[in-house]
Amino acid sequence: MIIDKLIDKIKETENPTVVGLDPRLDYIPMCIREKNYDKYGKTLAAAGESMKEYNMAIIDEICDIVPAVKPQIAMYERYGIEGLKAYIETIEYAKKKGLIVIGDIKRSDIASTGEAYSDGHIGRANVEGELFEVFKEDMITLNPYLGSDSIDPFVKDCQKYEKGLFILVKTSNPNSGEIQDLMTDGAPLHEKVAALIEKWGEPLRGKYGYSEIGAVVGATHPKQAERLREIMPHTFFLVPGYGAQGGTAEDLAVCFKDGIGAIVNSSRGIIAAHLKDKYKDCYDDESKFAKACRQAAIDMKNDLRRCI
Amino acid sequence: MIIDKLIDKIKETENPTVVGLDPRLDYIPMCIREKNYDKYGKTLAAAGESMKEYNMAIIDEICDIVPAVKPQIAMYERYGIEGLKAYIETIEYAKKKGLIVIGDIKRSDIASTGEAYSDGHIGRANVEGELFEVFKEDMITLNPYLGSDSIDPFVKDCQKYEKGLFILVKTSNPNSGEIQDLMTDGAPLHEKVAALIEKWGEPLRGKYGYSEIGAVVGATHPKQAERLREIMPHTFFLVPGYGAQGGTAEDLAVCFKDGIGAIVNSSRGIIAAHLKDKYKDCYDDESKFAKACRQAAIDMKNDLRRCI
Repeated sequence: MIIDKLIDKIKETENPTVVGLDPRLDYIPMCIREKNYDKYGKTLAAAGESMKEYNMAIIDEICDIVPAVKPQIAMYERYGIEGLKAYIETIEYAKKKGLIVIGDIKRSDIASTGEAYSDGHIGRANVEGELFEVFKEDMITLNPYLGSDSIDPFVKDCQKYEKGLFILVKTSNPNSGEIQDLMTDGAPLHEKVAALIEKWGEPLRGKYGYSEIGAVVGATHPKQAERLREIMPHTFFLVPGYGAQGGTAEDLAVCFKDGIGAIVNSSRGIIAAHLKDKYKDCYDDESKFAKACRQAAIDMKNDLRRCI
Repeated sequence: MIIDKLIDKIKETENPTVVGLDPRLDYIPMCIREKNYDKYGKTLAAAGESMKEYNMAIIDEICDIVPAVKPQIAMYERYGIEGLKAYIETIEYAKKKGLIVIGDIKRSDIASTGEAYSDGHIGRANVEGELFEVFKEDMITLNPYLGSDSIDPFVKDCQKYEKGLFILVKTSNPNSGEIQDLMTDGAPLHEKVAALIEKWGEPLRGKYGYSEIGAVVGATHPKQAERLREIMPHTFFLVPGYGAQGGTAEDLAVCFKDGIGAIVNSSRGIIAAHLKDKYKDCYDDESKFAKACRQAAIDMKNDLRRCI
């Protein structure tokens, strides 16, 4: 089961960190960008190729110290076909380097349409009996607003192909409460969603007691996270919002139980570390920028281990 | 404003129908599929090319009688890069034929990530100052679960580039109530979402009094739709669930006000009409299958006009 593999990898690296591969062109060292502008012009192809090379350099430097990466598909979809090629190639490369890949896609749609998304991302696309693995993520994020029949097709593919899900419960953004905190029979909506996820995951629990259906719980809401840990004792948490968004290691410690139970995302805190004064000394040449990312990942690991 | 253009087109065609371009390989006539299997093998490329040709044949037959099409991106994303190429080419072709294109993408993410989606779908992707229109939809659907800061980036691009949104309120699937109907201070959640959408759209109203921010309201829930029409007097409705999902023209009449106010989607009822006995006589040769789609679109128009 993928959730067991993820926990094994976290134990092996002693690091509950997932690196968010959310490239922006202005994070990418000029030496990479200019090479591609020379080759392709200032085009979508140059953007895609630059993102891919940038990600590969980061993956090379972090693959022995973190268990997983989380590419945010929006950053690639922004550049259309060329961006999405980089998304797929990033996933392939990360898996080859032994990392677990969580595709942050936040999809959801009614049953037959949900099935199409599931085929493409974690299942197989069928062309006249020939089966194709398309986006190839190990785990993906989903949005729960449409209800369980929008989740079912993905659950089926999780069982069939050893894949996993993280469903949005309480997101890390400032206005997440507008809908997620509305009071429903004395409890905020996100607690109702949490109870559904704990129930959906019941038949899918692995050797550590956590199910293939995880939950997204923002580090920026520690009080809610504490309550959510109680409501979802068998649900693994994907925790965004650490670092740049304001969540601290102290805040998110409540997401863990006996040192496991969650994986914490950092995107720009790691992948843009080379732009911070703090990490300038990690590399002498721009082409070695990812050494700064490695040091930031080590610092994050130590920061988390201090509190968990 | 795009919402005014949409209403103008509905008035001009006297038809509040949007055709859902949600291809499945088994809807596509064998003559199209086999040509592409011969050329590309049974591959993702053959799937993409077949979907594109199928859509183009349908668009040719319906472009004078309907105002808009709604490609469901999941059906294309299933086949990865090759599928998404067909999605983009379908959009370009439909626009060239004068149709308004609603991309059914149901995206949503926190602010900076939402911005990336918006750049790709309705805004512009920026590569070192060069701006690219990527997916090129006129309007897109969004999921509200993350709150207003996930919607804001799209609203900005609507104003800048004359684009429009439809935000999920009450979806047409059987389990939509699990979350959308939870009672919050005496009213179901979907009514709270509706009130937010009406508010968000206030500064964006066009000449007919409807705003650029519309709502998705399923035809399968007539009672809820009636109440939602009251809560959102200035919000245009995109109505899925007619036909195959069980919604009737009588059910969805409540979504309209003075004959306008909504556009009703039909996907397989139109694009797979050639597979139904009822429409077999519309075409003699398989390559002319889209004549059946045209007849189904005319029948739907007449059915809707009977009730609105």
